[in-house]
Amino acid sequence: MLIQEYFKSREKILNAAMDEYLESKDSYPSELHEAMRYSVFSGGKRLRPILMFAAYEMLIGRKNIGRLSRLLPAACALEFIHTASLIHDDLPSVDNSPERRGRPTCHVKFGEATAILAGDALITKAIEILTEIKQSKLALDCIKILTKAVSTRGMIGGQAVDIISAKKKVNINTLRYIHLKKTGALLQSSMELACAFHDAEENTSITLSNFAVNLGLAYQIVDDILDEVGSFEVLGKNPGEDARNQKATYPALIGLETSKKQAIKLLRDSHNLIKNMKNNDILIEFVEMIRQRLP
Amino acid sequence: MLIQEYFKSREKILNAAMDEYLESKDSYPSELHEAMRYSVFSGGKRLRPILMFAAYEMLIGRKNIGRLSRLLPAACALEFIHTASLIHDDLPSVDNSPERRGRPTCHVKFGEATAILAGDALITKAIEILTEIKQSKLALDCIKILTKAVSTRGMIGGQAVDIISAKKKVNINTLRYIHLKKTGALLQSSMELACAFHDAEENTSITLSNFAVNLGLAYQIVDDILDEVGSFEVLGKNPGEDARNQKATYPALIGLETSKKQAIKLLRDSHNLIKNMKNNDILIEFVEMIRQRLP
Repeated sequence: MLIQEYFKSREKILNAAMDEYLESKDSYPSELHEAMRYSVFSGGKRLRPILMFAAYEMLIGRKNIGRLSRLLPAACALEFIHTASLIHDDLPSVDNSPERRGRPTCHVKFGEATAILAGDALITKAIEILTEIKQSKLALDCIKILTKAVSTRGMIGGQAVDIISAKKKVNINTLRYIHLKKTGALLQSSMELACAFHDAEENTSITLSNFAVNLGLAYQIVDDILDEVGSFEVLGKNPGEDARNQKATYPALIGLETSKKQAIKLLRDSHNLIKNMKNNDILIEFVEMIRQRLP
Repeated sequence: MLIQEYFKSREKILNAAMDEYLESKDSYPSELHEAMRYSVFSGGKRLRPILMFAAYEMLIGRKNIGRLSRLLPAACALEFIHTASLIHDDLPSVDNSPERRGRPTCHVKFGEATAILAGDALITKAIEILTEIKQSKLALDCIKILTKAVSTRGMIGGQAVDIISAKKKVNINTLRYIHLKKTGALLQSSMELACAFHDAEENTSITLSNFAVNLGLAYQIVDDILDEVGSFEVLGKNPGEDARNQKATYPALIGLETSKKQAIKLLRDSHNLIKNMKNNDILIEFVEMIRQRLP
């Protein structure tokens, strides 16, 4: 199966589930529910839930969309948390981004106050739907995995360091920390969730977590490189924004060539971690997909 | 036991537990952890956790501080959620409050971006510590109770309507909705949590929930009245702020005398709901304490 087809089919069941879980636009208070839906359905790539699906289907040994229905609470929770983080990141006092994926950001469309609440509500919703998982222990394990990933030791910690470091001279270790936590923690949790649903051995969970962390870091470095030398088409947003926002990037700190080498090494490491696993074709294609973005 | 003594002793074990759960000020990223601690330890009245303690001690039939240790995750979770809601409410784009309890608010002290993240982190922390409750089913029940209370059908829904209604002419039904959800939902959950820990009958849980909802509504009306005719000493903040912020209040909508009558009726209803329960002395004193604030 081509990875594009895989993405398309899995995205479809994910979107249907998110549509089911979210209150309708007209539910009181409608502005809030509309803002939540606006940001959730704004053309995201759904990387985290689809990575979780792919890892789970590798573990059960076959691609079977029917078997994914039990994962849907976790898949939607991942995407709701990710969306909440984008809404809060885009706020004027944080990254001050008026646009995302060619559309006005949540606070531009609905006002800052509603955007703040929409983020809070999506975090809460993510946990709430995890409580609906039938087996108590599995539900609780999923909530543990997700809250650890979101906490100040994870995603929020990375966002905080990113904020504190803005317009300051940061070193490569700080930049690495930001990426590892801000995006890495949630990617890692998508693998841990897949393993929890399969009741996989700890070894497998650690290997897949490392796979996702390397992949996430590579993705960020490639993004930094594209921001410096890429086009709007490949990047999906205007290049040069990092420099304009005085954001630390890999190319700025260690040069373009060394950045490329690092990205390639991380992608090779990702590949090597899973190369001996059976039914790894979709995850291997994930790695390849990111490599192909490199200019 | 005098209610003041009761408050003091229960507040002490709550504060010790919150201190234990929160990362130290120096933990990286320190600005974020400092902001969380600053807002949690800023002299709040701890109404929600102490109400939960009091209900639980009524249910088990004796005041026993030693027996409260198993409730501490839920007690801290309630206070962390409440603190998060205050941090986000105080933001410039929401209520724009530079001070709370005589101290600069979180965003004034640490910047808006860190304040937004501190709120997010406290919501996440609240859920995370609930997962530490030993019995899986109880832990999951607590998370269900709390996420329902925080959701768009609860606290966040109330905050959203409050924001949307600002500077608009609202009617008494909308104002009632705001209070019922914005403060009532979390108060109600404090009773539901106490009942979950005691495995109380559904009847008891419903009665105590109604008790807390009435009490919360009465508290808000008394606050509105004091804002109109009270002094700084009784109110704990400058009176007249609601009028200056063009906020809808009970006295503004239904007049001072009718507001007083409503508050007294709600307090009488609260009293009546629990008057036949054994060991109800602390909860009865709670009602009395609010009645005494009435000018």
